[in-house]
Amino acid sequence: MDIFEAINSRTSYRGSYKSSPVPREHLTRIMEAGLAAPSGCNKQTTSLIAVDEPKLLKELLSMIEPPICSTAPAVICVLTQRICAYRDKCFSVQDYSAAIQNMLLAIKALGYESCWYEGHITDDDNIGARLAKRLGVPDEYDLVCILPVGIADEMTTHPKKKSFDERAWFNGFKKTGSFKEEPKCN
Amino acid sequence: MDIFEAINSRTSYRGSYKSSPVPREHLTRIMEAGLAAPSGCNKQTTSLIAVDEPKLLKELLSMIEPPICSTAPAVICVLTQRICAYRDKCFSVQDYSAAIQNMLLAIKALGYESCWYEGHITDDDNIGARLAKRLGVPDEYDLVCILPVGIADEMTTHPKKKSFDERAWFNGFKKTGSFKEEPKCN
Repeated sequence: MDIFEAINSRTSYRGSYKSSPVPREHLTRIMEAGLAAPSGCNKQTTSLIAVDEPKLLKELLSMIEPPICSTAPAVICVLTQRICAYRDKCFSVQDYSAAIQNMLLAIKALGYESCWYEGHITDDDNIGARLAKRLGVPDEYDLVCILPVGIADEMTTHPKKKSFDERAWFNGFKKTGSFKEEPKCN
Repeated sequence: MDIFEAINSRTSYRGSYKSSPVPREHLTRIMEAGLAAPSGCNKQTTSLIAVDEPKLLKELLSMIEPPICSTAPAVICVLTQRICAYRDKCFSVQDYSAAIQNMLLAIKALGYESCWYEGHITDDDNIGARLAKRLGVPDEYDLVCILPVGIADEMTTHPKKKSFDERAWFNGFKKTGSFKEEPKCN
């Protein structure tokens, strides 16, 4: 799939999924896409666990209240390590977010839908920590997000977004620029 | 360009750029790709300013010490607003990181190189704040990253990364899974 098509057609899908399993080859390609994202000072703070074993998946999803993506045939759990890139500077949130965005695009390109479930997992009730424990994840990793992977069983929708001119400008805050104003070289 | 090709060929380019200007149409497509990224509760906390006016660009880049991307014919400045998605939960770092990753892929797909310059801009010497002031950005926005856009004048290189098995697993921490172990449906 063309990169711009993937970027523009991707959306956050919260509907139910068809039961068709996701081949390991696809889960691997999706995770490879995630790991190909850049990371601050190449610290590679993001790790991933795909869950496709039906019994384990059911058990994990039953731990999430209120339920999300309960019909997904596979999920990818995103783990992060708070490693400093240099001095006290840590870019682990940026690192895993870039990895997630790559995976969301790869998921779309392979014909699946997904949704970035983070707030629900990292909220005060610590669902992420309980999922991590069940998966044998050591304490130095945090499980911060799950991405369902599966074929949509309902229509996808796109949320309303602000216009380009409300969020993107040229050469100054709120300065709009048309294609016709080609930059002149000095 | 195919999405997987863009994901796998993208790299952080820190070399010099050819002087050829970047058409406004391309800068617009790159920023549109950034704005198409998801954001927590659709709060759209990320805004962008492309700088391609040669005099202004030179002035901005001269404010960055030690210098970075000083030969780039255009840069995109990434602005963020710390808006809560719900309660006290703010996902603005995740939001702008997803937008940056989309833009890095779009930049690559259009034949340019770039690099995610964030630590250099947000460090204790507050370069980002000074760039923002020069661009007329109000206080409620933070300028957190600049992305150069231009045609590479040197070879691109890829940093060494850990293997897949060191960072991605199936159904448990450090459990490897081959393509042949297809998931069975219960």
